[in-house]
Amino acid sequence: MKLVTFRSGNETRVGVIDGDDVIDLNKADASIPTDLRSALKQGFDLVAAAQRVIDSGSDHRVPYASVTLAPLVPEPGKIVCLGHNYYDHAKEGGNLKPVYPLIFFRGASSLIAHDDPVIRPQVSEKLDYEAELAIVISKRARHVKREQALDYVFGYACFNDASVRDYQKRTSQWTIGKNFDGTGAFGPWLVTPDELPPGAEGLSLRLILNGETMQQANTSDMIWGVAETIELLTEVLTLEPGDVVVMGTPAGVGWARNPPVWMKHGDRVEVDIERVGRLQNTVQDEVTAG
Amino acid sequence: MKLVTFRSGNETRVGVIDGDDVIDLNKADASIPTDLRSALKQGFDLVAAAQRVIDSGSDHRVPYASVTLAPLVPEPGKIVCLGHNYYDHAKEGGNLKPVYPLIFFRGASSLIAHDDPVIRPQVSEKLDYEAELAIVISKRARHVKREQALDYVFGYACFNDASVRDYQKRTSQWTIGKNFDGTGAFGPWLVTPDELPPGAEGLSLRLILNGETMQQANTSDMIWGVAETIELLTEVLTLEPGDVVVMGTPAGVGWARNPPVWMKHGDRVEVDIERVGRLQNTVQDEVTAG
Repeated sequence: MKLVTFRSGNETRVGVIDGDDVIDLNKADASIPTDLRSALKQGFDLVAAAQRVIDSGSDHRVPYASVTLAPLVPEPGKIVCLGHNYYDHAKEGGNLKPVYPLIFFRGASSLIAHDDPVIRPQVSEKLDYEAELAIVISKRARHVKREQALDYVFGYACFNDASVRDYQKRTSQWTIGKNFDGTGAFGPWLVTPDELPPGAEGLSLRLILNGETMQQANTSDMIWGVAETIELLTEVLTLEPGDVVVMGTPAGVGWARNPPVWMKHGDRVEVDIERVGRLQNTVQDEVTAG
Repeated sequence: MKLVTFRSGNETRVGVIDGDDVIDLNKADASIPTDLRSALKQGFDLVAAAQRVIDSGSDHRVPYASVTLAPLVPEPGKIVCLGHNYYDHAKEGGNLKPVYPLIFFRGASSLIAHDDPVIRPQVSEKLDYEAELAIVISKRARHVKREQALDYVFGYACFNDASVRDYQKRTSQWTIGKNFDGTGAFGPWLVTPDELPPGAEGLSLRLILNGETMQQANTSDMIWGVAETIELLTEVLTLEPGDVVVMGTPAGVGWARNPPVWMKHGDRVEVDIERVGRLQNTVQDEVTAG
């Protein structure tokens, strides 16, 4: 099953993809929460409810192509991001094989949807792409062992962890370069785990810039897989319903190329993960009002 | 004016301190939102509403000493933390004077209230304290110049940025060591800016461990003051109503001492900021159910 969050005026709604259509789950059944995080926090069985709506042959449908998507989870409690989780990417930056994942957080204010512009900020020209697999946490997880960890995954999606490299490297801490407004593309939809191999392993992952493949790897190349990552994170903290974990990027990023490749106004950037989906955005220069 | 967030059963409420009492603002006026972030997001004038309740001589009051506080903003959209913002602390870690603030984020899952236990985790004994000034953002801020920046501050509070040092230093990225459950103490109350010098400058700040002063500095020692920090951050991202900025800690932390000082079960740890308040917590070893 594929779930989306989409815009309707100033609100967001939850939908399920049915063929070429999106069924508006909130119109079809007013008891369904209007965003994934709320549904998960309430323990609401969104998949079962969506299946009932599909089976009922709901008329509350619009063509997928006509829908304006929102970030898949518009306001996650946490967005936990891994760095150097593909050894080839660690190597291209001159780093040793890490012994523990590098972790930073994004804020929700950095998120954008499929088809939203990636914003190249006024203050930097060093805007780079990073193709990543993202997971959405289904329920409260603390001290979860890897053998049980996949029970806590609500689904999978694509993420473009677009990074402003000079800010990222201005100090030892990357966070600021990972939190520019309009840089965290998340979508287009969530794929439920039943449609994928366990832990989304063995899937081809690509970053495509203006039609050219810039990153190509397989999710099996990740040093820490999804289950192991949940185990490591929940030794430390509580993963909560609707939290997002972004699993890191492989080699081929723009800054490590010679000469470096920076994204610029008008570029089309896509993250494609086999059986998960293709997330597409176009780069726009920041415009400041006034 | 001093505002608190407190627990009532499974819910939180907003209160205002009046003498030795807390007035329950939600009981006194049902139109007042039940948490600071919601009030700020709605553009609700909480200070004016609280003043009206005080002036009306409300009976909805309980002794402050009987109230169980919650983290001042229980679920901020972002908690942006500065590192090395006091030169003496940068120096004690062997670092040069920074040219840009070191930034990391905390998640709300790490927050605790005044009087809640600071949790020493099962996986580490290297639990350290950090006394810090925190600010709560009042309204949406992007590309704000320092001259206007203080208009975006709703108020000030104490923060203990308790850190698990071996996890913090396991990789180059500090975030994971700053996000253990039960380590971000935030409170006890919010002080509105009218009660303090502009930008909360010139205030004595102390960390007291079991009655002994371990850190002592002045907020004027910060390399980046409150207004300058808001300018720097909003070049990059949108600060949203209810977001929290934690301003960094001075010298005297436990890990830089010889021998190092780690907090242990039963320790009493206090952050005292002149005219802002005193935040007190007791350390407890983590207990895992089962």
